[in-house]
Order: sequence, then structure tokens, then C-alpha cells
Amino acid sequence: MTRWALLFEYDGTPFVGWQRQAVGISVQGVMEEAASHLVNRTPVAVTGAGRTDSGVHAAGQVAHLDLPSSLGGQQQMTARRLRDALNYHMKPHPIAVLAAAAVADKWSARFSAINRRYRYRILNRAARPALDQGRVWHVKHDLDLDRMREAALMLMGRHDFTSFRASACQAKSPIRTLDRLELCRDGGVIDIHVEARSFLHHQVRNIVGTLKLVGEGKWTPAQVATALEARDRAAAGPTAPPDGLFLMEVGYETDPFIEPPD
Amino acid sequence: MTRWALLFEYDGTPFVGWQRQAVGISVQGVMEEAASHLVNRTPVAVTGAGRTDSGVHAAGQVAHLDLPSSLGGQQQMTARRLRDALNYHMKPHPIAVLAAAAVADKWSARFSAINRRYRYRILNRAARPALDQGRVWHVKHDLDLDRMREAALMLMGRHDFTSFRASACQAKSPIRTLDRLELCRDGGVIDIHVEARSFLHHQVRNIVGTLKLVGEGKWTPAQVATALEARDRAAAGPTAPPDGLFLMEVGYETDPFIEPPD
Repeated sequence: MTRWALLFEYDGTPFVGWQRQAVGISVQGVMEEAASHLVNRTPVAVTGAGRTDSGVHAAGQVAHLDLPSSLGGQQQMTARRLRDALNYHMKPHPIAVLAAAAVADKWSARFSAINRRYRYRILNRAARPALDQGRVWHVKHDLDLDRMREAALMLMGRHDFTSFRASACQAKSPIRTLDRLELCRDGGVIDIHVEARSFLHHQVRNIVGTLKLVGEGKWTPAQVATALEARDRAAAGPTAPPDGLFLMEVGYETDPFIEPPD
Repeated sequence: MTRWALLFEYDGTPFVGWQRQAVGISVQGVMEEAASHLVNRTPVAVTGAGRTDSGVHAAGQVAHLDLPSSLGGQQQMTARRLRDALNYHMKPHPIAVLAAAAVADKWSARFSAINRRYRYRILNRAARPALDQGRVWHVKHDLDLDRMREAALMLMGRHDFTSFRASACQAKSPIRTLDRLELCRDGGVIDIHVEARSFLHHQVRNIVGTLKLVGEGKWTPAQVATALEARDRAAAGPTAPPDGLFLMEVGYETDPFIEPPD
């Protein structure tokens, strides 16, 4: 068997999320189905780095799968052939493999990852989105970025994020370290860049939903610190909608998709 | 009557284009229908600055319309009310009015315009688009931007653009002046920025379709000059698909959407 790493993007709108579910079309399900075409329809497991929720998008998701080194006497599998074959079989679903790379047998898209970067986009203007429908959270009320930045500082670093964690979250520990929580505005577009080794379920969306309360003036920045200390989901703000969230990049000790020089 | 200028964006995918047609939903038709709700369903004419084709998008289209100064004894119409009312009545079509402004009676979105800026986006990579489906032209073959830039220089300035004009073009003169034709690459994304006082029908898409031949190495940059001199549509390259084209901005002597200081 050869283990392959895949770098891919998807529009999360039509999916029940990354993970296979009893009902509905998942990104994982479409990829596993496409991969099974390469091995005479025998089942193939695809493991993702981040389990994005329904409606959440990805510009740089990573996964891995194992394929027999010899595929029924055909041409040898190469990274390009795997990329193109998966893209062919995943049509017309909005998922595209950008790159594939052979990796070590013990390499895991999920457990070898040392960093995840998300971007949450808010469209902060009166008019509803036309071009970016489904890709942004539309917030009509003018948000005060300085106040939001002040609140963001209180969430940076290592904390017990119980207040920002979905009740369904399966992680053993609520302790996480936020390495980046930056807000940028370009006209009506506010981008919130978030990075950590790993995240709790709904952590980014719960942080964004809380920062929005501060931006609107409904909360003071200090109330965010109080919410964090409460270690109670009910103490923090609501969950922001999935539309604005993009998994941008998953980081590894060595980037598997950079081809070594000849 | 008060004449109003409108600044708006739309996703061109579901429309037959800007202009009203006998069959199909047009951007103009949706706007006129929405505006008629404000005047007891009497017909309202909306005049656009640029008549984009089916599938072409706009981030900064401009139009104008006339409304009675007094709307049936209701509150006075304001720029914000007009913007919000049109956005309400245009739901769920992907068109959004970003701003409205009262203008002089003789002001015309079309004839007062002194500049139009378009952006054409090519996705130049092996994998088909997932996140940007319908918003880019997917070109798999690696394009040589230096060659394309060399060819672009030959189209800059004032020329007879008959070779780059749709046969259905209704403009009296084929003479146009290209003020900008710039190519930028960011990873797999190539943006082509084009500016002129006005354009011929399909002019941008025919230019892009021809530059792509140069980028692939099928044409030399010099052949583009020959095609231009031929003054024959058959001499230039094919029409690029509408998906990648965005009308970004329409320029006027005075920007009608900038509110004067108090």
C-alpha cells in the first residue's frame, strides 16, 4: 500500500459537512466514493485534517488515504494521476484536489498536523450579499473593529475554552492555545484570521459570534474575558453561521506538497 | 420626478444578461420590476452603464431611474430607503444595490460615464475550480504571462478594434482607446485588468481569448498585432467564456455616490 496526502478545496454549501453521516452528502463520502473507483469499487477510507461542519468551506483542507501500490496491472499511480482521477470521479460536486503526494505510512493528515488556519469573513454593510452569498456572514450594523481587537487580545494564548466549545464537542480537553486572532477590514469586508494547533468544535464560530457582540457595542471587551473565565458555554455569545468560515491551511512539520528539488 | 443613480453588484450566472430579453430573467428586468413596486406597479425604466452579457458578473455596475418626488403621500424617498426597498423587492435574485444617490435630471448612467473598468479572472491550474466555479475561466495549460504582456502592449491605446468586436456589435465606430490592459498573477489566479472610456461588444472577452493563445504558445505576440491590423473578426482568437468577467467600476466626472461633506 502507498499512503497519499491530498490537498483540496470545497464549497461547503451543498454538504452535510466533512464527515460521513447517515443521511446527506458529505465531502468525505464523495472523496471515498471517488477513490473506490480506482480500486474496483472496494471501500477506501479517507481521513481529513479538520472536520468542517455543514456549510463551512475549505481552500486548503488536507486528507490521507491508502491505495495498493499496484493498481490492477495498470500504469503506476502518480501524484498527478491520482489528483486528476479523483477530480474526474468527484464531478460535479464542488470539491477539487489541488495536489497529491506520497507520504510515509505513519503520516496522518489529522495527527501529524501541527497548525490549522481559518478565515472567517463578515460582510459589514447595509446591502445583502449578491456576489458572496453563502460565503460571508452578513452583518448590517457597523462593527467597531478596535473594540473587537481589544476583546480578541483576551482570547489569545492558552486557555480553557469551555465557554466557546459546542456541547457536542468530543475533545478530551477544553484547553487550547490560540496563536493568532487578527481582524482586518477592507471596505465592507472584515476578515478574522485564526490559528491554533487544533480547535474545539465550533470554537472559531463561537469566538466570532462573541466578537460581533463587542463590535456592535452590546458587550464590552472585558465581558469577553468574563465569559472565558466562566467556563460555561451559556456565558459566551451565539455561534456565528457557517457561511463565512473557510479552512485555509493545515500545517505540518514538513509540507508534504512541496516537491523536493531534483 | 427625481433621478436616482444606483451602484450595485450581481452574480451574472442565472441571468440572460443585463438587458431585458423576450425570454429569460435579466438584471434590468428584475430591477425594473422591483422599482415598479415603489410606484403602484406602474412601469419604471432602468438604464444601465454597461450591458453585460449572460453569465458576466458585476461588482460595481451603475444605472439610473426616475421616480416621482412624492410617492403617494408616504415618507419622502431617501437614498437609503431606495437602496433598502430595491434590495427587499429583488430577493432572492443575486443582485444587491450598494448605494443610491439623487443626481441631476440630465445625468445618465450610460452617457455620463467616462470610464469602465473590467476584471477578467483566469484560474490557471490543473484542478478544476470548486470554490470559484462560474467566476473564473479554467485554463489547465500553464500560461506564459510575459508573452501575454508583450501581446497586450500591442493592443494598448487607440485602434480600430474590428477584429475584437462581436459581429452583432451595434456601435457606430469600431475605434476604441484601451487605457489599461494589465496582467497580474497570484498563485493559480491570473487577473486581467482592462480600462477604457467604453468597449465594443465582446471586446474584453475577445482580447482575453486571443491573449490566452499567446500564453499557451500557440500564437506569437506579433500575431496579435497582425490580427488587430486585419480588421476582421476571423483574424483574432476565440471569445473567452463570460464566467471570468466582472464589471468592476464605472467612472464619472464626479462620483455620484460620494456624499458631500456637511
